[in-house]
Amino acid sequence: MNTILAMEYKDNALHMIDQRKLPHTYEIFVANTYQEVDFAIKDMVVRGAPAIGAAAGYGAALAAKAYENEETSVFLSKMEESLDRLNRSRPTAVNLMWAVKRMKKLIQAHQDLPTKELAQRVLEEAHAIVTEDQAINLAMGQHGNTVIPQGATILTHCNTGALATVGIGTALGVVRTAHAAGKNIFVYADETRPRLQGGRLTAWELMQEGIPSTLIADSVAATLIRDGKIDVILVGADRIATNGDTANKIGTFMLSVVAKAYSVPFYVVAPTTTIDFEINHGSQIIIEERSDEEVTHIEGVHVAPEGMKVYNPAFDVTPNENIAGIVTEQGIVRAPFDEKIMKLKNNH
Amino acid sequence: MNTILAMEYKDNALHMIDQRKLPHTYEIFVANTYQEVDFAIKDMVVRGAPAIGAAAGYGAALAAKAYENEETSVFLSKMEESLDRLNRSRPTAVNLMWAVKRMKKLIQAHQDLPTKELAQRVLEEAHAIVTEDQAINLAMGQHGNTVIPQGATILTHCNTGALATVGIGTALGVVRTAHAAGKNIFVYADETRPRLQGGRLTAWELMQEGIPSTLIADSVAATLIRDGKIDVILVGADRIATNGDTANKIGTFMLSVVAKAYSVPFYVVAPTTTIDFEINHGSQIIIEERSDEEVTHIEGVHVAPEGMKVYNPAFDVTPNENIAGIVTEQGIVRAPFDEKIMKLKNNH
Repeated sequence: MNTILAMEYKDNALHMIDQRKLPHTYEIFVANTYQEVDFAIKDMVVRGAPAIGAAAGYGAALAAKAYENEETSVFLSKMEESLDRLNRSRPTAVNLMWAVKRMKKLIQAHQDLPTKELAQRVLEEAHAIVTEDQAINLAMGQHGNTVIPQGATILTHCNTGALATVGIGTALGVVRTAHAAGKNIFVYADETRPRLQGGRLTAWELMQEGIPSTLIADSVAATLIRDGKIDVILVGADRIATNGDTANKIGTFMLSVVAKAYSVPFYVVAPTTTIDFEINHGSQIIIEERSDEEVTHIEGVHVAPEGMKVYNPAFDVTPNENIAGIVTEQGIVRAPFDEKIMKLKNNH
Repeated sequence: MNTILAMEYKDNALHMIDQRKLPHTYEIFVANTYQEVDFAIKDMVVRGAPAIGAAAGYGAALAAKAYENEETSVFLSKMEESLDRLNRSRPTAVNLMWAVKRMKKLIQAHQDLPTKELAQRVLEEAHAIVTEDQAINLAMGQHGNTVIPQGATILTHCNTGALATVGIGTALGVVRTAHAAGKNIFVYADETRPRLQGGRLTAWELMQEGIPSTLIADSVAATLIRDGKIDVILVGADRIATNGDTANKIGTFMLSVVAKAYSVPFYVVAPTTTIDFEINHGSQIIIEERSDEEVTHIEGVHVAPEGMKVYNPAFDVTPNENIAGIVTEQGIVRAPFDEKIMKLKNNH
């Protein structure tokens, strides 16, 4: 059911769908170096927390390939440098830090191997991240599907699909699963300003899959929720604190407030790799601020007066009390979250 | 304090700032006929409930001018036809219907006058609407200013300024008044998708006035409200039912829900001409749906996949329980609204 591949490693390069150019242009961005992967993450050629994690894995593989003929000490210090740079490419999605940490651990555990062999191990680990993410996506789809009623109308925000992962998606993976299960669902997709990932990417995925859907400006969602037109809201996550507070694309928090006011179930769908087990409150999550141009320009066209100041946070934090449940690959976690989330760590 | 004139009648034509082209281009759209005024309202050359009312008044004046050499019976039937067409140009802003009704009444009361003289009366009535709107705006500014604390940070939605009226504005008129009173205010302006009236028009007005301000994507407002960064929210209105339910630009309702959840005062600023005394509940307000292209295209650039369905309501309805008060030219009306709003009718 998943024909879209956000990234593919071949010919010693990472081939990614250039998500900046969809839906007009389907173009492949080829990263031959880890620096190009770093750029691709920063500039949002590739985005979505799980996809960023996978891309970072391949970034590590490209760095390892580049340095595989160096002496071990040089190799190790170059890898440290490369991984640290990748780690800083975007600040909010914890899957990135998770992937970097995983690579560091691997390298440390096998530092006695010949560098060429070690580089091969790094590439295999990157492949493993992808294979795991695909399986995780399928499992989240199955678990999430249990909360989707027959004939449900689902509201989604941002892009949480195949483009945001390397599998069927997180929230949109649940949508795909429910659709494939013949549940006769209908989707309202928030366009998701400023980067319009909903209008550009989710709409594109929904059309590719033939899932009945309609695009709305973000501020239309509240009226649909109040008028009883939405049965369930599914969003992704970029980082989840152990108390359940969830950082996700700007606009998610607003939806959660309206959902709570009108008693519409609001689910976060995210792999356990999105949980930051080191923080226990949303206030500890660093929120990335992106450039003014994302708001003042659309596709290169100026839509605000020259010199106007802008505040452009990429994410917001939804407090745990607004969340009906967090759908992970291990099952659905419901409030009170703390203890149940910490349990996920042990199987993680 | 108001140097921006949304419209000016001169040389037998209505000269309007072309609001579709701001902020890049300051261009005057000249309507020589009532049909061109009709087009200007439909296509949003001119927008904002009070400005639409004033433009319709001048549309009537242009029609009267065009038919002033006809026999009375022809003149009257042509005026009826013109006014009915203007009345249908947009469905939600009640100021439009109010202005049309006012013109119809005037014509009926003076139908025995020579048509040339009657046409002159229609023009004078159009001027009177403008003069009144200016005074009304000033009065609303004064009343509204009483709820603005010293050093307040104010959140606004859409454009409610000089461009939306023929005076200093409704909600933005209050902002102007507070700024002129030395209250040291700061404004966050929602960009207001899909037409970006906040980013294009409000930002432009704020910069022209030198009022410290920052532009945000609509979905950023919720986080600012929760984090205690907003002291008061001011919005305009397109139609108000006698129970206080208020139709305004899409996104207003969403703000009101978050404002209520986090106890931030939410005020509607609108002249009594925006009250529809014939309906007593928001559910009776007709909500205009506009074209898909407003969402799928931005400044002519396609930002959604070809063929994607869109739901694009221009307005939403904020229930009275979310509104701290309605600032009118007669003072601030607070809940319970019904009786107090009906009282405004008598002075209206």
